[in-house]
Amino acid sequence: MKLKIAVLPGDGIGPEITQQAVKVLKSVADRFDHDFHFEEALVGATAIDQLNNPLPDATLDLCKEADAVLFGAIGHPKYDNDPSAKIRPEQGLLKLRKELGLFANVRPITTYSKLIEQSPLRPERINGADMVIYRELTGGIYFGEKFISEDGNSATDICTYSVSEIERVAHLAFQAAQKRRKKLTLVDKANVLETSRLWRKTVTELAKDYPDVKLEFLFVDNAAMQMIVNPKQFDVILTENMFGDILSDEASVIAGSIGLLASASIGLKAALFEPIHGSYPEAAGKGIANPVAAILSAAMLLDHFNLTEEANAIRSAVNLSIELNVCTQDINKDNHYSTEKIGDFLDGLI
Amino acid sequence: MKLKIAVLPGDGIGPEITQQAVKVLKSVADRFDHDFHFEEALVGATAIDQLNNPLPDATLDLCKEADAVLFGAIGHPKYDNDPSAKIRPEQGLLKLRKELGLFANVRPITTYSKLIEQSPLRPERINGADMVIYRELTGGIYFGEKFISEDGNSATDICTYSVSEIERVAHLAFQAAQKRRKKLTLVDKANVLETSRLWRKTVTELAKDYPDVKLEFLFVDNAAMQMIVNPKQFDVILTENMFGDILSDEASVIAGSIGLLASASIGLKAALFEPIHGSYPEAAGKGIANPVAAILSAAMLLDHFNLTEEANAIRSAVNLSIELNVCTQDINKDNHYSTEKIGDFLDGLI
Ligand SMILES: CC(C)[C@H](C(=O)O)[C@@H](O)C(=O)O
Ligand SMILES: CC(C)[C@H](C(=O)O)[C@@H](O)C(=O)O
Repeated sequence: MKLKIAVLPGDGIGPEITQQAVKVLKSVADRFDHDFHFEEALVGATAIDQLNNPLPDATLDLCKEADAVLFGAIGHPKYDNDPSAKIRPEQGLLKLRKELGLFANVRPITTYSKLIEQSPLRPERINGADMVIYRELTGGIYFGEKFISEDGNSATDICTYSVSEIERVAHLAFQAAQKRRKKLTLVDKANVLETSRLWRKTVTELAKDYPDVKLEFLFVDNAAMQMIVNPKQFDVILTENMFGDILSDEASVIAGSIGLLASASIGLKAALFEPIHGSYPEAAGKGIANPVAAILSAAMLLDHFNLTEEANAIRSAVNLSIELNVCTQDINKDNHYSTEKIGDFLDGLI
Repeated sequence: MKLKIAVLPGDGIGPEITQQAVKVLKSVADRFDHDFHFEEALVGATAIDQLNNPLPDATLDLCKEADAVLFGAIGHPKYDNDPSAKIRPEQGLLKLRKELGLFANVRPITTYSKLIEQSPLRPERINGADMVIYRELTGGIYFGEKFISEDGNSATDICTYSVSEIERVAHLAFQAAQKRRKKLTLVDKANVLETSRLWRKTVTELAKDYPDVKLEFLFVDNAAMQMIVNPKQFDVILTENMFGDILSDEASVIAGSIGLLASASIGLKAALFEPIHGSYPEAAGKGIANPVAAILSAAMLLDHFNLTEEANAIRSAVNLSIELNVCTQDINKDNHYSTEKIGDFLDGLI
């Protein structure tokens, strides 16, 4: 298969982890006889530094013509602590999601038996937990109008959802449930929010098309608790943008480290693959970042093009590295390997 | 001391747990020679059933003239699963918070050494965790305009915060931090939301008045993860309404059961005390609900009037009951006691 892959390393640890993912993808191309072509572009704080634009036109153009985007991470503390900054790194990622129409963010959470002993959660609670979060990604309060009053004394963010925005991501979530354990949990705050009530109504309607899937509802506050008390109850979770952001980071504790969690962002035409962790600027350049989330994001990229055997080769390599305790320091404090060494090790297994 | 206490049992398990709290408060009044006068009123689904109004005028009037409100729980599935219901139980609580100006919701989270072994979290992670969440309670997306488009195809919730709304709750949080371990963590999503940036700016300004308090910032997604990975890092958490709702329910896993967590909602004049758990309708009337959250909310009521010795008497009784494993089934599966028995037991210790 011939694929043009746009590579957007971004900020903080983004470049070093993305480099490992590209390395592994190149080996996959070699071994399975594919033609992957990689092209790099600027995004985030790095792009602001160089071009005063978190998503330069050239980057957007590249992403639009590419078959897929491999994304690193975004964000820099210098903007976080300056509430009045007009240009911010995150705008690059948000605009990219919007422009590419990446309405569904898919975040699988599983456990590794070797890591179960070091999760902050008790083994018996998480052993066998296996869920996937479908987070709506181009709507809600992230993309509604936002403004500050003229006197600077008040600020507003608007959260809007339309039936069609809800339906398209819900369809994907129902279909995923059909291929899994046939349970879908809609997480909302329908006892307070009008948008949540529209979610509940729309998803309830849609459920008629998927009679084999059991639909359940959970308020987001309760869901945040249930995620820890009994994560095994979840199969597919469907939720809006902000709740999905919070719940998926929380769910990372089940896997053992946020450094292991990959995601796919899917649109009608485009697709982008990125770790769910952030840019972790304190670690940048130190060779301590975990590249596994980026590498598993590359596996999700392969899945997306039905290169299942190829994706499984990556996942097997990751499983083996964890089995053998060949890990970065977030996972193995005592005897850890560098970002690059892990990349090389996984690469060698392809 | 003479106190008039409005009692609003509400829905589901609300009545049976509130009854235990009132019983205990009566014993406190007896033993410490106070004059507590209790008056009950309708709220929530129960009030809708009887008066088609989740917060009848008589209830609001009573709460306004009372010295404090003791609140049970609110909510009923018949409304949750009817997204088009115009009148809903939760409106009763939200309107009450707004009308009484209860802008700060204080939710302390601690551990009980006896329960550490049965938390879903590993003992070493939570042992010694001790935090208090200051949740803004009368602003944000809960109280912004909300509407559905005329064609029913889209819904909107508006989130607004003003500087003064942020300042008043922030002052309380800083003052609490001064009396504790002098650390305040502001949880927001300043990399995306305009309101969060106003929070960050306002709180940063205010911090100058509290030079002895260390101010930190955490994005809400990261906070949801840190709450499980390393809860001991938190002293006082300050956050907006919706994030506070989610984080405080999540934090309940640290205490061992949401059935143990109390809260105080504070305004300039009024104060309301309620468990953080919901109405748990599946359990209503079965005598299995944990009354401890309600009883500890009564202790927070006593604290509010500087009846410290009295409040401590309740807390000592609760500690002893947990030490002795005299608990409801959420805590002690094998050998549990009923809601009323726990109430009687605690009452007997006053
Ligand atoms: C960087 C930030 C804007 C982003 C988000 O909130 O969506 C990140 O947290 C994520 O989850 O991908
Ligand atoms: C019942 C509901 C409206 C309420 C809230 O979301 O504030 C509850 O969850 C709480 O936390 O007190």
